[in-house]
Amino acid sequence: MNPIFEEHPHRRYNPLTDSWVLVSPHRAKRPWQGQVEKVAGDDRPAYDETCYLCPTNTRMNGEINPDYQDVYIFNNDFAALLEDTPPHSFEEDELFKAETERGLGRVICFSPRHDLTVPEMEESAIRKVVDAWVDEYLTLGGKDFINYVQIFENKGFVMGCSNPHPHGQIWASSSIPDEPMKKQIAQLKYWQKNQRSLLADYIEKELSKQERVLFENEHFVALVPYWAVWPFETMIVPKRKMARISDMTDAEKDAFANAYKRLTVRYDNLFETSFPYSAGVHQAPTDGEAHDEWHWHFVFYPPLLRSATVKKFMVGYEMLANPQRDITAEKSAAVLRALSEVHYKTK
Amino acid sequence: MNPIFEEHPHRRYNPLTDSWVLVSPHRAKRPWQGQVEKVAGDDRPAYDETCYLCPTNTRMNGEINPDYQDVYIFNNDFAALLEDTPPHSFEEDELFKAETERGLGRVICFSPRHDLTVPEMEESAIRKVVDAWVDEYLTLGGKDFINYVQIFENKGFVMGCSNPHPHGQIWASSSIPDEPMKKQIAQLKYWQKNQRSLLADYIEKELSKQERVLFENEHFVALVPYWAVWPFETMIVPKRKMARISDMTDAEKDAFANAYKRLTVRYDNLFETSFPYSAGVHQAPTDGEAHDEWHWHFVFYPPLLRSATVKKFMVGYEMLANPQRDITAEKSAAVLRALSEVHYKTK
Ligand SMILES: O=P(O)(O)O[C@H]1O[C@H](CO)[C@@H](O)[C@H](O)[C@H]1O
Ligand SMILES: O=P(O)(O)O[C@H]1O[C@H](CO)[C@@H](O)[C@H](O)[C@H]1O
Repeated sequence: MNPIFEEHPHRRYNPLTDSWVLVSPHRAKRPWQGQVEKVAGDDRPAYDETCYLCPTNTRMNGEINPDYQDVYIFNNDFAALLEDTPPHSFEEDELFKAETERGLGRVICFSPRHDLTVPEMEESAIRKVVDAWVDEYLTLGGKDFINYVQIFENKGFVMGCSNPHPHGQIWASSSIPDEPMKKQIAQLKYWQKNQRSLLADYIEKELSKQERVLFENEHFVALVPYWAVWPFETMIVPKRKMARISDMTDAEKDAFANAYKRLTVRYDNLFETSFPYSAGVHQAPTDGEAHDEWHWHFVFYPPLLRSATVKKFMVGYEMLANPQRDITAEKSAAVLRALSEVHYKTK
Repeated sequence: MNPIFEEHPHRRYNPLTDSWVLVSPHRAKRPWQGQVEKVAGDDRPAYDETCYLCPTNTRMNGEINPDYQDVYIFNNDFAALLEDTPPHSFEEDELFKAETERGLGRVICFSPRHDLTVPEMEESAIRKVVDAWVDEYLTLGGKDFINYVQIFENKGFVMGCSNPHPHGQIWASSSIPDEPMKKQIAQLKYWQKNQRSLLADYIEKELSKQERVLFENEHFVALVPYWAVWPFETMIVPKRKMARISDMTDAEKDAFANAYKRLTVRYDNLFETSFPYSAGVHQAPTDGEAHDEWHWHFVFYPPLLRSATVKKFMVGYEMLANPQRDITAEKSAAVLRALSEVHYKTK
């Protein structure tokens, strides 16, 4: 890393979304007098009778969860996207444009155990989550009105997650949402120009630089991207170019479960707290095209900055002008790299 | 409003930023079991000896604030952008691109009174804030290394604002940040195509539709934009196309102060709480060009959704895929329109 960028405010380019991040390395010294987050009590029971995701409990719509043993999937009772939306579009000149959006929302319980989270689950149990994602991607993506399947996990009270039971969501839609669309455009441009995958080239370079790589296994690399926005933002990238998670071999699925666990264990160890984040897959749309340009990857956007209770607020300048971060990607990577892969609770 | 969009999930286009928002009108019924925000105590003294923004107090860097009477401006002690940043740029193929960023950060105390906020200030006092913004825009923008001046107010603990003393910030930079850049590109495209201002055409149509307009005065219109993302997002738009705030006449400056106060009073009355938001100006860069395409405007991005303590979280799907909202812009406008312009505390 050039020492100038280690010390001085600078902008970095994100080639995946064609955007910039402002980096202010000197700013980490700023004292914090603002809001302090609550830390959720971490002594949850294995089964909570008031949790609407625990096995055998009744959900808000009256349905009863089965006594499931590993993964359990159901339609979101309060989905933002619905299957029976009538098609309609409206365009009054260039200023008023709208169209109805068909889709559906699914909830995936990762484990029957209310007291676990991904970093505390066995790799074999995480593998079942990966299998469920692949199934859902294929089933939902197979519907003619679904062109994009967004798989994500939103974890922690700080993230507006209302239930600590380990779970993720899937929102599938007719349109391709803005973020994956940006990545598609950038990857396609790169592919057409270089006949190579943007992310394959990128991780090759990161592996040789070893400044931002956290760890790798046979099939995946975990790193802090050069253009990270969130303080401890990371990415898990498959070494082989694959457009979609359903392209994974069994060995790759195991290796992804391994990387997902190892990374989230490091996250929990960072501030010795159950680390909040939004995370998920960016991959090829399910619009029937080949999408050779796509190289799927998994991103983590965690808000904590200095401790279990002090987060980075993306407000003010960030909302109005440009994302901004207070430590360099290299510093964050060094911190995450130094952490143990043994969960602090089991020590 | 077409009844189909009143009831069903749909996407709306934002012609100013060339992006989409997902609207899920039916979703407001969702019960909330998630994080509840703290409400900041609202009985602050007029002077607080521990506040680093109050007159005569010592700031963290040892400087002493003067006994100021209206507006007071100083360089941010922990600015993200610095004047003495050495120029440097780096580009290793398309994947690693960075450049140092020169700039500066300013803090503007809106009033010596620690216990006030914009909606509780006199219009004549708000007018002094507007004058200060114009001065700063001209002075900072006049520096050869400053090409964009971002004026904003970040209000409330929920927004990561660490000090309730009424104040705003200015971050001035060599680069044009992403958000204003998007708006510039869209406005230029519209201008070249139609020889008219995008926002002038837009507010003309909104004034005739009267579905999202909150109020107007002689020179400004306050409305919930068709493409609003935040639950009670609004915009104050000058009726006359002006590229920058320094183009305002005296009468327009007074009229802006009037609109700023009336809108924030409505906000405070919505949940009878000091309403948190990030707000600020989007206007022409200070890069020496004419920027005829620009029509400056003031935006408010407030997070509260259902009450003083329940906000909308832009997480999970929103971070990974696409912004999403749970009530229509028209519903929000109707709610804000029905509110009194007399502040609840003075009733
Ligand atoms: O400058 P402040 O108020 O200390 O800090 C706040 O506003 C800044 C500018 O919008 C943000 O970058 C920070 O994350 C936020 O905490
Ligand atoms: O679906 P949940 O967990 O109730 O809700 C949470 O995640 C959603 C999807 O990311 C967001 O739209 C909501 O703002 C957030 O509170």
